Amino acid sequence: MEDCIFCKIVKGQEQSTIVYEDEHSLAFLDIHPLNLGHTLIIPKKHYPGMGEMPLDEVGRLFVSVAKVMQGVRRATKANGMNIGQSNGRAASQEVFHMHVHIIPRFDNDSQGGLTFPERKSMGPADREAIGKRIREAVETRG
Amino acid sequence: MEDCIFCKIVKGQEQSTIVYEDEHSLAFLDIHPLNLGHTLIIPKKHYPGMGEMPLDEVGRLFVSVAKVMQGVRRATKANGMNIGQSNGRAASQEVFHMHVHIIPRFDNDSQGGLTFPERKSMGPADREAIGKRIREAVETRG
Repeated sequence: MEDCIFCKIVKGQEQSTIVYEDEHSLAFLDIHPLNLGHTLIIPKKHYPGMGEMPLDEVGRLFVSVAKVMQGVRRATKANGMNIGQSNGRAASQEVFHMHVHIIPRFDNDSQGGLTFPERKSMGPADREAIGKRIREAVETRG
Repeated sequence: MEDCIFCKIVKGQEQSTIVYEDEHSLAFLDIHPLNLGHTLIIPKKHYPGMGEMPLDEVGRLFVSVAKVMQGVRRATKANGMNIGQSNGRAASQEVFHMHVHIIPRFDNDSQGGLTFPERKSMGPADREAIGKRIREAVETRG
């Protein structure tokens, strides 16, 4: 879609730190991460949310989610991992191209319960460093 | 696993309001829902989290997640839907049998941003009523 920021990332028209790519999906760092290594993974094809995707494409995307999650976990030495996917503004979706959050979690990094850490800002050098570590960790799994 | 509450639900040894079942997965209502219709879906086979599941089984489970999500959305007339999956205590996992949260969301039902509504208690009659509506809505999709 023409005005979709994630479609632009797929086409290489918008800068991003890519950590994984296959025929159907692309994973890159969230630019305002909840924690270091917070990654988004998307289908290359534009769908607003999970409800608009054919079921087999959902399944295929989550195979990639599981693969990338393991790489993020190893690269960040996280204590836990959250997977999150939002559909609609009421569910806090902000970019209307289907995406799955892969969020590394650390002991006591939030106020507990279902709360998340505050979003962080990161410079390009730090982003590139953690991006490289994740790329290598995802590839290592094979 | 012997002491796993979700394994007991699979075996019918523990009460639950089941809304969907296929060969590999089972979906039932969360007993302390964040909103009416909050559903959990699990693989029938015991895995602690996503990282321990074979990739193809993750893919298969999320095909069911997408199917059940649509039913929950229709049955609850939700404005949005959150999908969430937690791995490890640091990520707020409480039951160590892989499960995916399917959470209906309504406009302004929380304090905004990445916050969730408070957990609610529900009586058995209300639970059975919404369970029935979800079961029918999931089946309708075919």
